[in-house]
Amino acid sequence: MKVGIVGLGLIGGSIALKLKDLFDNLTIYGYDIDHESISYTIKNKIIDAKYDEDLLNELDYIFLAIPVESIKKQLQNYLDKISEKTLIIDLGSTKFQISNSVKDHKKRKNYLAAHPIAGTEFSGPGSASKDLFKNKVMILCDTKKTDSNLLLNAKKIIESIGMIIKIMDSKEHDRQIAYVSHLSHISSFMLGKTVMDKEDDEQAIYNMAGSGFESTVRLAKSSPEMWSSIFVENKKNIIESLDEYISNINNFKKLIEKSDKKTLNNEMRRINGIKEILNGIK
Amino acid sequence: MKVGIVGLGLIGGSIALKLKDLFDNLTIYGYDIDHESISYTIKNKIIDAKYDEDLLNELDYIFLAIPVESIKKQLQNYLDKISEKTLIIDLGSTKFQISNSVKDHKKRKNYLAAHPIAGTEFSGPGSASKDLFKNKVMILCDTKKTDSNLLLNAKKIIESIGMIIKIMDSKEHDRQIAYVSHLSHISSFMLGKTVMDKEDDEQAIYNMAGSGFESTVRLAKSSPEMWSSIFVENKKNIIESLDEYISNINNFKKLIEKSDKKTLNNEMRRINGIKEILNGIK
Repeated sequence: MKVGIVGLGLIGGSIALKLKDLFDNLTIYGYDIDHESISYTIKNKIIDAKYDEDLLNELDYIFLAIPVESIKKQLQNYLDKISEKTLIIDLGSTKFQISNSVKDHKKRKNYLAAHPIAGTEFSGPGSASKDLFKNKVMILCDTKKTDSNLLLNAKKIIESIGMIIKIMDSKEHDRQIAYVSHLSHISSFMLGKTVMDKEDDEQAIYNMAGSGFESTVRLAKSSPEMWSSIFVENKKNIIESLDEYISNINNFKKLIEKSDKKTLNNEMRRINGIKEILNGIK
Repeated sequence: MKVGIVGLGLIGGSIALKLKDLFDNLTIYGYDIDHESISYTIKNKIIDAKYDEDLLNELDYIFLAIPVESIKKQLQNYLDKISEKTLIIDLGSTKFQISNSVKDHKKRKNYLAAHPIAGTEFSGPGSASKDLFKNKVMILCDTKKTDSNLLLNAKKIIESIGMIIKIMDSKEHDRQIAYVSHLSHISSFMLGKTVMDKEDDEQAIYNMAGSGFESTVRLAKSSPEMWSSIFVENKKNIIESLDEYISNINNFKKLIEKSDKKTLNNEMRRINGIKEILNGIK
């Protein structure tokens, strides 16, 4: 099997490591705009060689693990050049605009829109791990537009790296992921900003920060380039979620102003229910 | 040594467990408005017996590990009744109003205002652990108002349970903790609320929630009674922090609306600096 991986960061690097772990007869060609990531991944045997456009025809799979805006810019170009047997899988955190941008492409069936619900706040191939995807969900979108044999084989690979497949419409995916993932990142970045702006004395933050703050602000360590691209790409849904978030905070603030403990308690007791949701459905 | 612990939740229970672990010649009397917590802690040998007001005179230490509003209500009553040798230590998350409420009490020197920067999103004595305080910070406030010998002995006990002592003015403590702790809890509760209100399909949250959402929403599992009390008690500082948080979100939203990736990147790159702050000061 020959695989191309474009983008050798946390996601691209982790896929390479896991595929290497699973398959013997496999060659991985990798590319990244950061040349150091290419040398690092070759040196550490994460990939076998640098990807070259001449190889395109020979590849079974091409994974696009680059910022969503770059995916949108390059997907058409890759589709133009690949052979009939190749499947391109993009791994971006937004799906509708990417999927929609090639909806009329004559090789649309050679493309699969995917979103692995896996990641950490760290970036770069040095953070990659072969276990990143273990027991995590892989959302596949608009799968009816992908060739059924190519899809079947892709599903086998995705399952072999330990993932659980869920199928969604790309528009619905973007609407929901704005709430469950993108909003968390903004709330965390803005928490970090508010605290840093206030505390000119960094030692004070360090002394007073408990594990609660650390956990809530963890996502503020995430890659700016990756996330600015997502925020702009999924702008409409994210702004809707932000408006609801701000409105909820304003209402909660009013309850605090009125010292209305009874309603505060009722509100928080209901929100405590997130515990059961996260444990799986009751 | 005889110790009274009022409030047998996560904090009170953990102190009891750690003291039991350290000292042989020790009797712990405990009290909680929840009778089940008293029976649970006696049955599990976390405390030795139920606290009774007749014992007040014999105690070396009384720890108040109850919601901050209850501390404010009961502290004066305890101070009225204790002997000269007893030290009352309150462990609430706000400090100024509590400390201020007894500032003219004739036994003010028998009181120490403390805040352990330790806790989890779980509550109740079943969540208690003797290692909860290990290497965590204990903030002591307005220490000049505490009798120097009683303070010295208290510091020894606090250090013996593994904590690092920091000294602060109570007003300053409340101003800063609103940002570093209380704001995190509200941002997390409101994230939980926004997602739960939107997603009538709980399975969808479960499928799409990655470790990022889980981490950011963790504090939304916290005890409503404890936190409504803190929010109302530290209202002024919390509202100030919420106003700044909302203003930061609104500005960030405008950058997304304008697709201003350059400024979004610069902003997030600066906020990434929270990583170094949390690792300790560079």
